[in-house]
Amino acid sequence: MNPIRVGIFGYGNLGRGVDIAIQANDDMELVAVFTRRHPSDVTIEGSAPVVSASELEQWTDKIDVLVLAGGSATDLPTQTPAAASLFNVVDSFDTHAAIPEHFDAVDQTAQASNHVAIISGGWDPGMFSLARLYATSILPTGQDYTFWGRGVSQGHSDAIRRIEGVADARQYTVPVPEALDAVRAGENPTLSTRQKHRRECYVVAEEGADKAAIEQAIVTMPNYFADYDTTVTFIDAEEMAAHHQGLPHGGSVLRSGTTGSNQEHKHTVEFSLTLDSNPEFTGSVLAALARACARLAEQQAWGCKTVFDIPPAYWSPLDGATLRATML
Amino acid sequence: MNPIRVGIFGYGNLGRGVDIAIQANDDMELVAVFTRRHPSDVTIEGSAPVVSASELEQWTDKIDVLVLAGGSATDLPTQTPAAASLFNVVDSFDTHAAIPEHFDAVDQTAQASNHVAIISGGWDPGMFSLARLYATSILPTGQDYTFWGRGVSQGHSDAIRRIEGVADARQYTVPVPEALDAVRAGENPTLSTRQKHRRECYVVAEEGADKAAIEQAIVTMPNYFADYDTTVTFIDAEEMAAHHQGLPHGGSVLRSGTTGSNQEHKHTVEFSLTLDSNPEFTGSVLAALARACARLAEQQAWGCKTVFDIPPAYWSPLDGATLRATML
Repeated sequence: MNPIRVGIFGYGNLGRGVDIAIQANDDMELVAVFTRRHPSDVTIEGSAPVVSASELEQWTDKIDVLVLAGGSATDLPTQTPAAASLFNVVDSFDTHAAIPEHFDAVDQTAQASNHVAIISGGWDPGMFSLARLYATSILPTGQDYTFWGRGVSQGHSDAIRRIEGVADARQYTVPVPEALDAVRAGENPTLSTRQKHRRECYVVAEEGADKAAIEQAIVTMPNYFADYDTTVTFIDAEEMAAHHQGLPHGGSVLRSGTTGSNQEHKHTVEFSLTLDSNPEFTGSVLAALARACARLAEQQAWGCKTVFDIPPAYWSPLDGATLRATML
Repeated sequence: MNPIRVGIFGYGNLGRGVDIAIQANDDMELVAVFTRRHPSDVTIEGSAPVVSASELEQWTDKIDVLVLAGGSATDLPTQTPAAASLFNVVDSFDTHAAIPEHFDAVDQTAQASNHVAIISGGWDPGMFSLARLYATSILPTGQDYTFWGRGVSQGHSDAIRRIEGVADARQYTVPVPEALDAVRAGENPTLSTRQKHRRECYVVAEEGADKAAIEQAIVTMPNYFADYDTTVTFIDAEEMAAHHQGLPHGGSVLRSGTTGSNQEHKHTVEFSLTLDSNPEFTGSVLAALARACARLAEQQAWGCKTVFDIPPAYWSPLDGATLRATML
């Protein structure tokens, strides 16, 4: 069987994660990376050509699935619908509240042009969404919890960097262990924002900056930090470089439900991730979804899909008989 | 929309679990329970008629999905293929090694008669299988682990009860905490049978029985106990009745994998269940699969299916737009 020919649009941390994942899968090959930068400025992991984004339309016959590795704030809302009129596509659109609107826009161009588009792949949305759906379908009487971390929040790190006197910053989101334990024990606690997560900030201050003012600006920042127990630790640039360059993340989705004639039996379903590299794991999910996308396209199942619509077997390179014999 | 009309064939612990689950789901109704016992000897949770198994064929127009709640050793290998020639069916066939053969037998009668048959629903096989498939598809470079327990193994309990001088027994399978911790920490340990699980046995001896001989017979029993660290605790019938009547179970599926240019990033994916009642949770899975079965039948997707073939959305009573808005 010919390998699935995959293109990557955008080559930041996530694009690189997809590139690495494609190399780990024998049934797919990277045929091109598209960039809005000057192509010679982009060095990729594999050996595929790096091409200007403006040449995208010339590749429609050479690519089975295009993975869009841009950001959800400004890139994907326009890129995915546009690309879905030319290619089968996969994206990781993760602005939860805007997913219905994004789905409709992408579905329209994908349907009109006979393409398959899988949106919102990754781990949340993505694997965490699947965990919520399966657990809720099995245990209709119950309660859901999602904890994120320990992991780097890029949005919160950026928010700190915008404060006057801050040279660099890294923010870790950390689940409160007591809250997680109570949920795991089936206690069905009602948890405030503050009771679920705390925020650890590591900050490099500019020379002569007012550290007390920086700390105060962080811990009182509405939406980002004011509702959390937030710790601020000042470190120097060397320590930042030595200990805070990774992008770990993860978290847990739990459902605590009951069954029985009198709801007397408790059940806890937990799905947890511990990830050294958020973009590489997300890229690995997108690569598996590129495979599923190619399968759906073979079946002419045109239109926009999410992880909810995809038979699990389509994620795997193995055939049905092998899966039943080895994994069921 | 009319509720999905469900029948249950067999009314032991699992059949009762399915009954309870159907009552928890507004979009399905129990229309009949079929039993090989005398129907008047069977008291069910709901208010459906209890009917002799011999009358099954008269119900083909009244049932959308028949859930087979018999055992994998002797019931399901013949019941499921036979029933799939009359009904859309769901079973929980759990003899892993025999799944391919069971699949083929069921597929043949389901295809020939235009029915949908979902086999091997439950949590292992079932939810654990899904966890293995998704995690392996995302992280092709890595290693899988499955831990069972803490929970009651009926097969091991029965094996103890067959020993001379044993009046009653209950066996708990318990994961070794150090092994589980090492896997969670991404250490990719190589674990022997003994290193993964231990076995706790609670035994009521008959009056005057030789307890030392019973203990020796248990801990040296091949396949069941000899390869494990096994503890035997003698208790009286009152303590058995007071503390060991439940059927708790659960366990964890973990995949520990790596990504990166040099596989330098570790990732751990974990799916865990903690269940007060094994049959009620399994019954809840089968009820959700009965819904999926009805959906597949609407689409005339005839033949045998497993959890690997079913789009996750089909497990849920909610429509696609609602799922995307609330769970993605």
